[in-house]
Amino acid sequence: MIASRLPFEVIRQPSTMRAWAENLRRDGLRICVVPTMGYLHPGHLSLLRAGRARADVLIATIFVNPTQFGPNEDLAVYPRDEEGDIEKARECGVDLIFCPDVEAMYPQGYQSYVTVEELSRPLCGSARPGHFRGVATIVTKLFHITQPHIAIFGRKDYQQFAMIRQMSRDLDFGIEIVGMPIVREADGLAMSSRNAYLSAPERSAALCLYRGLKAAQARFHSGERDSLALLDAARQPIEDTELARIDYVDLRDATTLELVTSVSRPAVLAMAVFVGKTRLIDNAVLGID
Amino acid sequence: MIASRLPFEVIRQPSTMRAWAENLRRDGLRICVVPTMGYLHPGHLSLLRAGRARADVLIATIFVNPTQFGPNEDLAVYPRDEEGDIEKARECGVDLIFCPDVEAMYPQGYQSYVTVEELSRPLCGSARPGHFRGVATIVTKLFHITQPHIAIFGRKDYQQFAMIRQMSRDLDFGIEIVGMPIVREADGLAMSSRNAYLSAPERSAALCLYRGLKAAQARFHSGERDSLALLDAARQPIEDTELARIDYVDLRDATTLELVTSVSRPAVLAMAVFVGKTRLIDNAVLGID
Repeated sequence: MIASRLPFEVIRQPSTMRAWAENLRRDGLRICVVPTMGYLHPGHLSLLRAGRARADVLIATIFVNPTQFGPNEDLAVYPRDEEGDIEKARECGVDLIFCPDVEAMYPQGYQSYVTVEELSRPLCGSARPGHFRGVATIVTKLFHITQPHIAIFGRKDYQQFAMIRQMSRDLDFGIEIVGMPIVREADGLAMSSRNAYLSAPERSAALCLYRGLKAAQARFHSGERDSLALLDAARQPIEDTELARIDYVDLRDATTLELVTSVSRPAVLAMAVFVGKTRLIDNAVLGID
Repeated sequence: MIASRLPFEVIRQPSTMRAWAENLRRDGLRICVVPTMGYLHPGHLSLLRAGRARADVLIATIFVNPTQFGPNEDLAVYPRDEEGDIEKARECGVDLIFCPDVEAMYPQGYQSYVTVEELSRPLCGSARPGHFRGVATIVTKLFHITQPHIAIFGRKDYQQFAMIRQMSRDLDFGIEIVGMPIVREADGLAMSSRNAYLSAPERSAALCLYRGLKAAQARFHSGERDSLALLDAARQPIEDTELARIDYVDLRDATTLELVTSVSRPAVLAMAVFVGKTRLIDNAVLGID
């Protein structure tokens, strides 16, 4: 009912967004934010729908954050479709879209950063130095600007989700951090804006990530608990795929992301794989079912 | 009038403090926070009175923050007087005192930190590695917990003030950061909790910092703009003092803290001096009068 009272707005100025959020909070309304880099796919839309069900006011942010891209990464070519994103977000019941310019977020002289230490080190943290510092920083800024009670992230970026949950707790943000399940294509490929980079043969090869996860899950469900055996099962379908090259495949505690030698508590099997030049990530949590 | 409506409370739990702050904000009240490490002296009390005049609700925080002390610094012996502090704060019109335990602020597994890069590097940043990361982190936490509209700091810790002002802007805290003038003893010594460490001869020697600042100011007012000449004037009284040893004496842009070779815009003459084993800091801004 609140959604119908709020006009749909696209906001570009941080100060304007913040003023909106402060007024909504003073009115006692519960705010949910879904931070995105745009180019929305059904995975994002599942986050928006989850947010719609959990709050009075739903804010989506669209910002391709330069500080989380490395110098040789795909910032310049990251896919964008602002007009389409706005339309999709509106259809999912978003009330406010915040899509600022880079200059408004990182003005001249900018120099403040947030780091989450242990959780940022392994996996994508070691493959992409500085990436998680960029993520923690932009999420901090977006939290301050949109003033949410609850924030929703996808679990495809599992390490990001775990890091933001820890950051919210450590820095007393007082924001409930929710991680939603991975949304997949019919054949199992995890939804990702970067899937747009894939040629037809690469799109087919990209299925090896899902096949690896399924193979390891099958071994786990048949009783295997040893990390090396589970990792072998996960790696095999990827190593058998000509266009694919493993960046990492790792099994780690689902909360601390510390290495585990055998699965006695929930563990995340996480992988990053280059398919052609496109780096894809995927994961599955073993031990929760 | 608001002060008389609020019961005076001493709060130890972050979640309790945060709930108070959220309710006060929802009531449309303007919150001011004055973060301190306790052992309140007239310098602190001037901050509290300034805060009392600027907001509906005045919160003082008392927390000796371990993450801003180096391994060989004075954390264990830092002076404390919680009962006296509470009484003094109450007399200055403080509504709520937040004094958490270390375990509540840094629980097991804590790993998130805030850094402000350029402004943290020179001066005390180079003398005390990690100090400003600790300060930026605890101030971020205290801001999140107390939800202020305005926060007041003393300019004796000039670099800290400049760093927090930058952090608040960079990370979109939306908090007005106010820096109040240094409060001095009758003979000119800057008020500091660490003055309690000084023996009688050291207390007398400690005046050399103020004498150095006055000497440089006199040269500045008589037209001297060259950094080396101004720094010479500042160093002379300290070098002439047997119990004193210079850690640094530096002249830097008052906003960016970059070195200046001559004063054409406001510049801060900042110094850290060991008097016996006690490290004292002081500063004066040249160019604003």
